[in-house]
Amino acid sequence: MTSKESPITALETGPMAELSPETRAYFDKCQEKLGMIPNVLLAYAFDEAKLQAFSMLYNDLMLGDSGLSKLEREMIAVAVSSVNHCYYCLSAHGAAVRQLSGNPALGEQIAMNYRAADLDARQTAMLDFSVKLTEQPDKIIEADRQALRVAGFTDRDIWDIAATASFFNMSNRMASATDMRPNDDYHAMAR
Amino acid sequence: MTSKESPITALETGPMAELSPETRAYFDKCQEKLGMIPNVLLAYAFDEAKLQAFSMLYNDLMLGDSGLSKLEREMIAVAVSSVNHCYYCLSAHGAAVRQLSGNPALGEQIAMNYRAADLDARQTAMLDFSVKLTEQPDKIIEADRQALRVAGFTDRDIWDIAATASFFNMSNRMASATDMRPNDDYHAMAR
Amino acid sequence: MTSKESPITALETGPMAELSPETRAYFDKCQEKLGMIPNVLLAYAFDEAKLQAFSMLYNDLMLGDSGLSKLEREMIAVAVSSVNHCYYCLSAHGAAVRQLSGNPALGEQIAMNYRAADLDARQTAMLDFSVKLTEQPDKIIEADRQALRVAGFTDRDIWDIAATASFFNMSNRMASATDMRPNDDYHAMAR
Amino acid sequence: MTSKESPITALETGPMAELSPETRAYFDKCQEKLGMIPNVLLAYAFDEAKLQAFSMLYNDLMLGDSGLSKLEREMIAVAVSSVNHCYYCLSAHGAAVRQLSGNPALGEQIAMNYRAADLDARQTAMLDFSVKLTEQPDKIIEADRQALRVAGFTDRDIWDIAATASFFNMSNRMASATDMRPNDDYHAMAR
Amino acid sequence: MTSKESPITALETGPMAELSPETRAYFDKCQEKLGMIPNVLLAYAFDEAKLQAFSMLYNDLMLGDSGLSKLEREMIAVAVSSVNHCYYCLSAHGAAVRQLSGNPALGEQIAMNYRAADLDARQTAMLDFSVKLTEQPDKIIEADRQALRVAGFTDRDIWDIAATASFFNMSNRMASATDMRPNDDYHAMAR
Amino acid sequence: MTSKESPITALETGPMAELSPETRAYFDKCQEKLGMIPNVLLAYAFDEAKLQAFSMLYNDLMLGDSGLSKLEREMIAVAVSSVNHCYYCLSAHGAAVRQLSGNPALGEQIAMNYRAADLDARQTAMLDFSVKLTEQPDKIIEADRQALRVAGFTDRDIWDIAATASFFNMSNRMASATDMRPNDDYHAMAR
Repeated sequence: MTSKESPITALETGPMAELSPETRAYFDKCQEKLGMIPNVLLAYAFDEAKLQAFSMLYNDLMLGDSGLSKLEREMIAVAVSSVNHCYYCLSAHGAAVRQLSGNPALGEQIAMNYRAADLDARQTAMLDFSVKLTEQPDKIIEADRQALRVAGFTDRDIWDIAATASFFNMSNRMASATDMRPNDDYHAMAR
Repeated sequence: MTSKESPITALETGPMAELSPETRAYFDKCQEKLGMIPNVLLAYAFDEAKLQAFSMLYNDLMLGDSGLSKLEREMIAVAVSSVNHCYYCLSAHGAAVRQLSGNPALGEQIAMNYRAADLDARQTAMLDFSVKLTEQPDKIIEADRQALRVAGFTDRDIWDIAATASFFNMSNRMASATDMRPNDDYHAMAR
Repeated sequence: MTSKESPITALETGPMAELSPETRAYFDKCQEKLGMIPNVLLAYAFDEAKLQAFSMLYNDLMLGDSGLSKLEREMIAVAVSSVNHCYYCLSAHGAAVRQLSGNPALGEQIAMNYRAADLDARQTAMLDFSVKLTEQPDKIIEADRQALRVAGFTDRDIWDIAATASFFNMSNRMASATDMRPNDDYHAMAR
Repeated sequence: MTSKESPITALETGPMAELSPETRAYFDKCQEKLGMIPNVLLAYAFDEAKLQAFSMLYNDLMLGDSGLSKLEREMIAVAVSSVNHCYYCLSAHGAAVRQLSGNPALGEQIAMNYRAADLDARQTAMLDFSVKLTEQPDKIIEADRQALRVAGFTDRDIWDIAATASFFNMSNRMASATDMRPNDDYHAMAR
Repeated sequence: MTSKESPITALETGPMAELSPETRAYFDKCQEKLGMIPNVLLAYAFDEAKLQAFSMLYNDLMLGDSGLSKLEREMIAVAVSSVNHCYYCLSAHGAAVRQLSGNPALGEQIAMNYRAADLDARQTAMLDFSVKLTEQPDKIIEADRQALRVAGFTDRDIWDIAATASFFNMSNRMASATDMRPNDDYHAMAR
Repeated sequence: MTSKESPITALETGPMAELSPETRAYFDKCQEKLGMIPNVLLAYAFDEAKLQAFSMLYNDLMLGDSGLSKLEREMIAVAVSSVNHCYYCLSAHGAAVRQLSGNPALGEQIAMNYRAADLDARQTAMLDFSVKLTEQPDKIIEADRQALRVAGFTDRDIWDIAATASFFNMSNRMASATDMRPNDDYHAMAR
């Protein structure tokens, strides 16, 4: 489980840290539920403090309570990663959209161009905001937030849309900067 | 300390959560050391889990052990925020560069255009990478990492450069998406 | 075979033309060899002259003699379509890369970001040129052609690289302009 | 007629192919009607199959039946080529706009910036769509097609606008990739 | 007054010209009123004709009669310079906005991102136009001018908005091209 | 001479000012030497101070002593105006390049894409710098100035290259902002 047989990133960040019992339990749980430990976790595992901070943020965002469904949060992840052409995140989160939606074509559409997907007004507004925030963060104005309210989102939901889109702008860049490789399993998942 | 007198963001995310003793202690420490609680913390304080995850990631990155000096990490923060035109982060981290460097002009230069600063080859390489990662994350290739190695950075340092630049690409977007207002104190600090 | 049950594009271009025997034979051959008639052909079939011109150009380019292998031509198709975020072409030609290479991950990599694929110098040069030609056609200079020669391509090969990349810049735009839908079969093909 | 005295492109693609009687007749007709054989045809003439496919597509598009006038199709050619800064196509099709419109200034305006021309709402909509399709093909949505319908275009016309704009996105790139030189005659034509 | 102790630009343009009495008087007036001679003037002083032309244009634009207040003209200068990341102009004109407005935060906001400032509809329209003219001059259309009229500006005012934004697109480029250094005094001014 | 029969700009800036004898003489000289008064001068003539400042700057730059030939300065004007798609400046200065070079094709090449012109290393370097300064002024670094020195330019020449490219970034924007119309005569000049 903790061996790192082929390089996960282009950086020699050294051996995996001595993991705490909590982290070992978290990895065991990934293995059990997903059948693998996502490579992003192994990439951070050279330093447990970094791994914990990343995981805590990620888990709260993608798995915590929210007015956005888990599928919607994964759709944001994929639409943002499409703009940034992030191989790791498109592989991992594209699989999640296919799985959570039970719709393989939808996963492809969001990964390739969400405008090709047959989305309702709410989801279109959500992804339009996420993509504008990705491409032109300096040009977000009150009218952009207001468009989300008109589409039915609360201010608390808008926080979550913003936080998810922002997180993947971080995560896409970590993956590109380090040439992070996704687990092979993602490619065939939920096709 | 915990009252939120004027709005910190454009979103009505509700009242501050009942804070844990640890968070209250953290806020007290901010007040004592900085003379204020940074508004970004108050913005996240409607939900303690989100606040903790954000703080843990931030503190590890900007204050933890690293081959990069604290000033260098702040320089990355400001160079990235300049590209993204982020008012909150340029205010807060511009002040940090002025303070840590004891050089008010340097803070302005990095905030306005780091190419106008009289940087050595190491710091230029560090900011060139950070800005390329910000503007064109999909175009980072091995040659970009190699340029950092040639400039004297270890792979472990490159992780930290990447992580800092990536974090502010998240943080800039949260600030823009929510119209987050910096504390007034930053403007006059270390001029 | 010739019925158009669900709309292939967003445009009402009218019923399929009375097809010539040659075109009917071509469609039969597609059905036999691919198990389907690619929707792009059905989209053009409202006017046989347009269909023939498109098919002749496409078949010469992708199936004719060339110093580029068929896989290489499909890789160009996919790398260009990735820049242009073309859902139709990424679906159809992504499948072709997976199939011709026998490497599902490679298909994903080129579709998501060819820089994440483990390509040799020849193929990297070929895709670098194709992507520059896509993004900044006005900035192609002799040095760009020379880089292809250095990578081992003849001038005749460079014509084919240019012609393939240029063709998909046309085809991507036709698909986006008309909201052309790929055949469902592509998604699961060669995974 | 078939000699290639000065290089038409930067690529050594070899001698002109043995041309079929049909192609020789086509060249004779060009010489008779235009007073020259357009260099683009000579550039493709090293391979007759490529020349025929290109010519068939071009002739159907620019000379075939359409709800768009020939002048309108040439205006699209020029507006697209202006975005892509294509020397060959601006020379050749700029001349065509000057000639078909009998208005030398109009040719210049479309070549330089179609927004400077005094166009009616129909032609403005047509060129706005063509330019968006050129610059941001991934961002075309139903509203863009609908704007054309509101301006009076049928869906069949929209196909032709899309096909013309898409074709010149191919053709501009072939010319830039090969450094194709326009016939000298274009410069003085219809001034 | 006329010595040039540390280099003001990266170019060796030679010694200061023998200045006319008018120019010496102008420099004396700067020294008296501003406490310094702005480095931009010293940079042009190697050639008095160039200095005079620049000064005449500048003074008419920024100090002459106009429907725009001096503060508004400085706001345009700073918003344009922010897009262009011009260190010289952001330093000098950022100071002017702080001074004329008596609002240090406003100066920072315009320099960092004018969308973060709490501007009224008139000033927002003025800066939206100035920034569009900076980023996409070729896309200005009648509707952009009309938006200024709706916001209350006369055609004569629109000329002045255009002239100011255009001037700083020149001035920003001169400063970047020559690596012009602002006077140190600007940093602390009006904080 | 001083009547303004058809509108020169889209702005109603009022009647021509009472012109000074010097300005009248200047206009007479234009009429005599060029056979027209350039519309840009008439556009500024509503305010003599503005007209004088503009003319003084323009005449020093384009007609004054310089290490750059007048043709080279016009080439910079046109290359910059091509990037900015400025109809007025491409018309007027395109004509000047045709005239000064005695080479109509050269004027077209620079107006359409200077990379298509057969320029020597010196002129290529000059236009590469001018275009980078136009497109990405914030990214000019010492290496860009050094490339000009290597191509044979003195620092004083670099000032003039910078000043000319910068001026047309102003002038292009004034023309676009006001929809300034070039004199009809330019179109046929020196073809």
